[in-house]
Order: sequence, then C-alpha cells, then structure tokens
Amino acid sequence: MESAGPGGPLGRQIRFLREADQLKGVLRQSSILDGSRKENSAEHSWHLALMAQVLGGCAPPGTDLNRVTAMLLIHDLVEIDAGDLFVYADATAQARQDAAEHAAADRIFALLPPDQGRELRALWDEFEERRTPEARFARALDRLQPVLANYYLGGGTWQAHAVRAGQVLDKVALIADGSAVLGDFARELVDSAVRQGFLSPGE
Amino acid sequence: MESAGPGGPLGRQIRFLREADQLKGVLRQSSILDGSRKENSAEHSWHLALMAQVLGGCAPPGTDLNRVTAMLLIHDLVEIDAGDLFVYADATAQARQDAAEHAAADRIFALLPPDQGRELRALWDEFEERRTPEARFARALDRLQPVLANYYLGGGTWQAHAVRAGQVLDKVALIADGSAVLGDFARELVDSAVRQGFLSPGE
Repeated sequence: MESAGPGGPLGRQIRFLREADQLKGVLRQSSILDGSRKENSAEHSWHLALMAQVLGGCAPPGTDLNRVTAMLLIHDLVEIDAGDLFVYADATAQARQDAAEHAAADRIFALLPPDQGRELRALWDEFEERRTPEARFARALDRLQPVLANYYLGGGTWQAHAVRAGQVLDKVALIADGSAVLGDFARELVDSAVRQGFLSPGE
Repeated sequence: MESAGPGGPLGRQIRFLREADQLKGVLRQSSILDGSRKENSAEHSWHLALMAQVLGGCAPPGTDLNRVTAMLLIHDLVEIDAGDLFVYADATAQARQDAAEHAAADRIFALLPPDQGRELRALWDEFEERRTPEARFARALDRLQPVLANYYLGGGTWQAHAVRAGQVLDKVALIADGSAVLGDFARELVDSAVRQGFLSPGE
C-alpha cells in the first residue's frame, strides 16, 4: 500500500494522528469536575467540541457550527510543543507563548499532506485571529469551559491563584463577544460565585 | 436569566455538559501511545473526531463527515453509566453491555431539552445500528484506533490478553466495511505485527 508509506498521504496522516496523541499528556490548570485531577488538553478539546454541538443555538444566526467544531478539535494541538499557559499569565509570558505556539503550528500541521496541512493551519490561524463569527464562538466556548469548571468546583483555579471577580469579568468579555447569551450566563455565574463567597469581589 | 434555570433549555444543556464531564473518568483497555497509562473515553472520543477530520478522504464518496464527527463526539457517553467493554469480550458480556448502554442512553440524552435530546439519541442509535455510510465510517475509525495503538505500542492489549491475529482480522472486517482503504491498511498492520513477532498468528 504505497499511500501508507512514510511519504504517502495516508502515511503522513497517520504520522500526524500519532503525534496528536501527545495532547493527552498536556495538563491544564483546571480540574475535571469531580476534582480528582487536572484536565488534559485532549479531553478538554473533546468537551469543547461537544459544547459546540449542544450550545450551537447560542451562536449568532448563520454561524457554521461544523467549522466551529473542526476548529475546536485542532485548536490546542500546538500545546504538544508549547504547553498550556494559564489564562491569567502576564503579557510577557503571553507573548512568549504566542511565539512558541506559532512555531509549533509550523511544525505540526506540516506533518500532513501539504494541501491538508495548509487547510488545517488556516483553520488554526482563524481561531487565533478571532475575526470570523465561527472563531469568536469557538473562543467563547474555550473561555466558558473553565468558568463552568471553577463555578461547579466551588472555586477551582480562582481560589488556587487568588483571582478576583474583576479579572474574571475581563475574560468574560470575550465570551460575550462570541455569544451574547453565553456572556450573560457567564456573568451570572461570576456574580453568583461572589455571593456564595468562593470568588473575591474587586479588581 | 430564565433559560439558564434548572428546567430552561440552557440550564438543561449545561446539566448535560456537566454530566458528560464524567466520561473523562472512564478508562479503556488501550493505553495512550507513550504507554504511560490507560486512555480514557473522553480523550479517545476527541482522537476519533480528529481522525474523521483528517482521514475523511478514506470514506466512501458522499459521506457526510460532519455527521460522522458529531456521532463520534457522543458515541461513548453511555459509558458514563455502562463503562467500557473490551472488544474481545464474550457474547454474554456483550449482550449485558448492550442493555446497559441502551438504559444509559435513555437517561443521559433525556437530560437535554426534549427536541435536542431526541436528535442526539437518534444519532447514537444510528451509530449503534451501523446502517448508514456515516455510521459505518464512524465505527471503522472506532475500530481502527486501538489497532493503531496496539501496533505502535508493539503489542499493547493484543499481548496483555493473548489475542491472536485471526481474532484481530475478524474485528478488522468492520473497518473494511466502513472504508476499503482503511480496511486494507489495518490488515497490513496486522500482517506486519505478526512478522515482527508481537502478534501471534492463528485463529
């Protein structure tokens, strides 16, 4: 089977899929909802893609949810090389992460057959640039998921890193930008967390 | 926000997505590719959905790959109640598992708003019944992934459970049924594993 050889299209696709397996070993700051351990970026990506399927009705009319799903499935692959950065990291760390992720995208998508590699790389760039409704909705889900985790864990990384409500609300702006309904919902969770005493008020 | 209350549509969707988080705690027989630990069903589902995106060209012409992806994202949710069953389990265990999975589907999809719950349940039934090209391709990927894992791990569950090449080839038939190309590829991996001595020949 020539196509399955190292340079053939199927061979390159399988090579890419083997590389992708490493995302299962990249740990995030957030825990899974039973609180037993940190979440990894592969299962996080699955949860986001499922959210796109289930919460699609919260996206602006005309949003292509299949494109959103495809974006969410690949958006974290760069963490295989670059690791996950905590959402409240400072600007210097964010810039360093950004450079590392772009280098990772160059390497990882180039494992695929060239046309397919370019297509998935363009999808990743779209997610990063956040200009289309699809990218905005995908980013909103990516931002909402840890808010849900922290809320239902009764504090989570908010408490572990002494994050305040004002900082969370800054991040929630990006949720509202992708989905007005989900933005409102996230703000309600923040307010409720403050009222219940597991998120500190203030900036 | 009324829709986010316990009986409102958003409230039910969030409830479902919280329940889905438990799939991250369901362990499969297969290991992740670095051999460090067992794979869980959430990251497995992500890997399959990514395979659908990348290997879509191996599906019969006209296959709706977005539907395949949606199916793969939800196909294992029933394991939250029913657990994962090893693919080489006997017929009695398979029948018991089948009943447990149907009961789980009744419970889990009913968490959603009724229309959406019926839609996702129909998608799960379609996957199980394996009548459409989409379901056949999705099942082929679900069957291929552990073959890849065992091959690249140099034995994996084939060795751990003393599985023989003939048994693997019986399972590979379902891959060929969803994709002729991937069926050929899987057979080549089985032959190669036998030649390299980490899969025993015979029935």
